Amino acid sequence: MAQDLVIGIDVGGQTTKCGVVDARGTVLAQTVIRTDTYTSVEPYIAELAEALNRIITEANAEGLIRGIGVGAPNGNYYTGTIEYAPNLTWAGQKKIDFARLLSEAMGGIPVKLTNDANAAAMGEMTYGAARGMKDFIMITLGTGVGSGIVIDGKVVYGHDGFAGELGHTCVVRHNGRSCGCGKTGCLEAYCSAIGMARTAREWLEMSDEPSTLRSLDKITSKDIYEAAKEGDKVALKLFEFTGHMLGEKLADFIEFSAPEAIVLFGGLARSKEFLTDPITRGMNENVLPLWRGKVKLVYSQLKESDAAILGASSLAWEL
Amino acid sequence: MAQDLVIGIDVGGQTTKCGVVDARGTVLAQTVIRTDTYTSVEPYIAELAEALNRIITEANAEGLIRGIGVGAPNGNYYTGTIEYAPNLTWAGQKKIDFARLLSEAMGGIPVKLTNDANAAAMGEMTYGAARGMKDFIMITLGTGVGSGIVIDGKVVYGHDGFAGELGHTCVVRHNGRSCGCGKTGCLEAYCSAIGMARTAREWLEMSDEPSTLRSLDKITSKDIYEAAKEGDKVALKLFEFTGHMLGEKLADFIEFSAPEAIVLFGGLARSKEFLTDPITRGMNENVLPLWRGKVKLVYSQLKESDAAILGASSLAWEL
Repeated sequence: MAQDLVIGIDVGGQTTKCGVVDARGTVLAQTVIRTDTYTSVEPYIAELAEALNRIITEANAEGLIRGIGVGAPNGNYYTGTIEYAPNLTWAGQKKIDFARLLSEAMGGIPVKLTNDANAAAMGEMTYGAARGMKDFIMITLGTGVGSGIVIDGKVVYGHDGFAGELGHTCVVRHNGRSCGCGKTGCLEAYCSAIGMARTAREWLEMSDEPSTLRSLDKITSKDIYEAAKEGDKVALKLFEFTGHMLGEKLADFIEFSAPEAIVLFGGLARSKEFLTDPITRGMNENVLPLWRGKVKLVYSQLKESDAAILGASSLAWEL
Repeated sequence: MAQDLVIGIDVGGQTTKCGVVDARGTVLAQTVIRTDTYTSVEPYIAELAEALNRIITEANAEGLIRGIGVGAPNGNYYTGTIEYAPNLTWAGQKKIDFARLLSEAMGGIPVKLTNDANAAAMGEMTYGAARGMKDFIMITLGTGVGSGIVIDGKVVYGHDGFAGELGHTCVVRHNGRSCGCGKTGCLEAYCSAIGMARTAREWLEMSDEPSTLRSLDKITSKDIYEAAKEGDKVALKLFEFTGHMLGEKLADFIEFSAPEAIVLFGGLARSKEFLTDPITRGMNENVLPLWRGKVKLVYSQLKESDAAILGASSLAWEL
């Protein structure tokens, strides 16, 4: 019988989502387990395998699974390992032989692994907004800023398997904000959901401008979005600043790989009504004339609840 | 008989260099014609064809030419056209169907074309410092700053054929120097030979620091190199500043494509004794920890007089 189904697994810091997926991108069965209740990888893999076997049964997919694709922080495509992922309780500074361990636990089904943003880019190319595109850059605007770069139809992994860390390119060269990576001035420190909330707090402290955001104990990017919808001027300026800065940096990326499109994804990208204009301006004001107005800015078309599973699953079609 | 020779052509603003090349990278015969004495492309192509036939005869290569590779400003790999090259007297704002015209003039020998920096990258991969490498970034430090990016063994052309304009990525976001491209703050405006000479003039005007450079009417990067060799402090600081700034920006590029090496080429790269240290520091201080100390900085190994021809010729092996 044809092995025409795959499994996608999205390993997040708190939870791990997994699903059985068909060639059209339909998630036939899915489940979630905790990621953060283990201090070593073996019991986590054991529970994950149990969960996978459960959804395989649920989808009537016994013997039909061609392969398993995994998106995980610091996942290395070449080696199948997860290296130095501080957000995973069972990984930390260790190098985890993830793909091999999971494949063994699943009776030898082949496993391919990459980082979450690369998986998202593959998902978008296989099922989403980048279908038919051979050259695009996916930027994930969530807690951090991730990226997956596709050139000539292939995800760029680079010499060591870790290419595409655009969230840690520099946007503020001198006296930039400190970033979780240990550097300062990174794109992620300004243009992630957390970065925008940091800008909000800084601005509110430095000025007396009235804003509904002042009444909040803790500001999130969602709060800023809600305030912007109500016409709050500080919130609108926050989107203007954050979007423009992202657009400026996208100009650099366009000059690198001349993509057909930039694809945005993630929590912050949901605020597209406030982001599209400043991003587009920042991009076109800073890119070489030959690309002005030519590179598309598009948003992910994958259903958010399925996107992480679909992205990871699309890796498995290569197997 | 096997067609085991190729022709390489380097179209520069003033002269066009061409040569017959064998598979080992030996230039069997070469010649130079003027580029800048024509206002339309047809007579230029006619003289170029004549020159090529001359060196084909000289190398006893009649019937042995597999193809012709051309490196030219704003050359488009996909279409074989030269588009909007203001430095070419017979091109200007026009779109020149260069590959087709030359192929017709040469009795149908196939012609492949790309920009000069991409050609240099191919030359380095085929015959030079990047032999055996699948992922590297070539930076040409000459009058301007050019780049050729190789990922997974292939030059990156992007969606439209113009990828790899790293000289026009931004190094100074606010109040940056104007660049020939119409933008401000570009890498090329600071880290080219001309950029470093501009920095020299600015510094000498702004300070009273003694320097042998003060006695010169017009400062070139070669003058700065000579002064640095004599221990001139301003000249040494100019290399420190220019190299460090280039290194800072290289960190961005590494985070994009995770190359095995950065390959430097061009007039300014000859000053490696003064550039290597500050570039390496700028790079390692600004790149993510995972790449610190890991990406090689190497210099072109091609004989400078042959390099342009070799680079262009390596395109023709694909034919």
